[in-house]
Amino acid sequence: MGVVVNLDEERKKTSPLDKLATLLEDDLKAANEAIVDRMHSPVSLIPQLAGHIIAAGGKRLRPLLTIATARMCGYTGDRHILLSACIEFIHTATLLHDDVVDESDLRRGESSANAIWGNKPSVLVGDFLFTRAFALMVEDGDLEVLRILSQGSSILAEGEVLQLVTANDTETNESAYMEVIEAKTAELFAAAAELGPAIAERPKTEQDALRAYGMNLGIAFQLVDDVLDFSAKEEALGKAIGDDFREGKITLPIVLAFARGNDEERTFWKRTMEELDQKDGDIEHAMELMNNHAALTDTVERARHYGSIARDSLGIFPESEIKTALLEIIDFVIERAY
Amino acid sequence: MGVVVNLDEERKKTSPLDKLATLLEDDLKAANEAIVDRMHSPVSLIPQLAGHIIAAGGKRLRPLLTIATARMCGYTGDRHILLSACIEFIHTATLLHDDVVDESDLRRGESSANAIWGNKPSVLVGDFLFTRAFALMVEDGDLEVLRILSQGSSILAEGEVLQLVTANDTETNESAYMEVIEAKTAELFAAAAELGPAIAERPKTEQDALRAYGMNLGIAFQLVDDVLDFSAKEEALGKAIGDDFREGKITLPIVLAFARGNDEERTFWKRTMEELDQKDGDIEHAMELMNNHAALTDTVERARHYGSIARDSLGIFPESEIKTALLEIIDFVIERAY
Repeated sequence: MGVVVNLDEERKKTSPLDKLATLLEDDLKAANEAIVDRMHSPVSLIPQLAGHIIAAGGKRLRPLLTIATARMCGYTGDRHILLSACIEFIHTATLLHDDVVDESDLRRGESSANAIWGNKPSVLVGDFLFTRAFALMVEDGDLEVLRILSQGSSILAEGEVLQLVTANDTETNESAYMEVIEAKTAELFAAAAELGPAIAERPKTEQDALRAYGMNLGIAFQLVDDVLDFSAKEEALGKAIGDDFREGKITLPIVLAFARGNDEERTFWKRTMEELDQKDGDIEHAMELMNNHAALTDTVERARHYGSIARDSLGIFPESEIKTALLEIIDFVIERAY
Repeated sequence: MGVVVNLDEERKKTSPLDKLATLLEDDLKAANEAIVDRMHSPVSLIPQLAGHIIAAGGKRLRPLLTIATARMCGYTGDRHILLSACIEFIHTATLLHDDVVDESDLRRGESSANAIWGNKPSVLVGDFLFTRAFALMVEDGDLEVLRILSQGSSILAEGEVLQLVTANDTETNESAYMEVIEAKTAELFAAAAELGPAIAERPKTEQDALRAYGMNLGIAFQLVDDVLDFSAKEEALGKAIGDDFREGKITLPIVLAFARGNDEERTFWKRTMEELDQKDGDIEHAMELMNNHAALTDTVERARHYGSIARDSLGIFPESEIKTALLEIIDFVIERAY
């Protein structure tokens, strides 16, 4: 009996990502092999640098969405493998360029590629991964897939520029901020989730539903990430606490605290976030202000809202193990905040 | 009579690029409009920054190749317009990233985008232009075109990394150097020239011939550019003289001078190019060594060799005004060296 209880306990601790990874073990293994295989180049710096960031792991959440939605939609071929590698390459390219732009030294608890090799290789290997991703889509050869991924990438890149423009601008309001994260984060989740029904040749309603699932899951994911920047333990986050604050990156917790603050508080936010004039104790004061205005908890509440939409968008699909796991991922993404 | 002579004189001074631009005036105008139209984004920094570098002009040589080869092959549609914009976007994206990687302050005689806006927007707007280029190809929707451009972009990006790896390495030999410039420069010329026969649905021999024309023209172009870095007038070059030298960028003139030099000379090259330990008078000494070993004139000789191959590859096409202009462009590219 004791053993059974222990197993149940064990099961509870298993994250839905692990569950999904077990459920789709062969596919995920094939995808990992494709990722390693397709980032190969005779220019050895390319697989070295790309391998560093890809091996550092991360959750493979985006490629997993493509694999899971394809299988949930009854797809029986193997195109989803290469396409999930393609999604991971686009994601990795943006991480490399993000770290250059943000001057980050840490990524997923490891030294970032720019910290090890410098900015130049990070920019150029990022470009290589972008172009390799496009070569993979073209190899797949389906114009609907190409449309999803080329438009998705273009929106993502536009979102990155938009984020740069709104950085250090405390006048950014909530809807402007949402526009940024829909483009720079959620769009790739949406595209990844849309690929499954697209290659399974399911009706447009299912494609739209899974796109909505990905989009709203991606928004919730980013909002919780924003909260974690102020509340997580460094080892859990895999990057330094308060990174966003130090860079003057305006995220929803700050948008809310600024909007709800008084003149004195706004002066503080302008000094620290716009002028980047930061002193010892500023980050603690920022967190105090965010707590006073419930800015972090309300950001999680907003994330819950988008999580609910993601949940409902799966309503049209029949019950299945994969569907259950996709639903659990929503909670998992939000519960990271605690 | 005097008037006739003057006109002839005038005609002689017209570059073959201008001639081709006049011959294909409507197409080039449409391509310029497509370029401006398609780099538009509600994120105003994107058209601002991209517009700066695109407006700074350049010769539009690569998009012109697509337009010219399409028309020479009897193409009567308008797909070449969007595709030439696509080529220009890929080229512009690489220029933006090159300037970040090279830390260049000047581009085509104007301040570079990174000098005005900083590195971050240059990286991200470059990414945007890459993804927009891919969106344009997908809009065209022809898998053969997509293959040419996605493979071409991927080779280009690989070449940029390869160039970074060989930079500051005086052991780089001529064939290693040729590999770099085939990928980072000539491949896009080749792809641009191959698009024309591809959309005109001409036989593979013609596609191969024009690809070879573009490839060899591109190599000649880059070799002459390498020479110009040491010999041009700054206003003609549109960038600072000796930029390559100061960055320790190994180009063919240096490969030749190093190979032909004695131990003392090699010590000089290692100090200046590998250790980047440069003093006043070093660039003058470098030019003296290159002159002693005929490194610049022999690089132009190599360019001529590739120019001849480009010339012969046009042999299978019937005479036409466009063909004549494409032949003249070869000489024009090489004569820039004088």
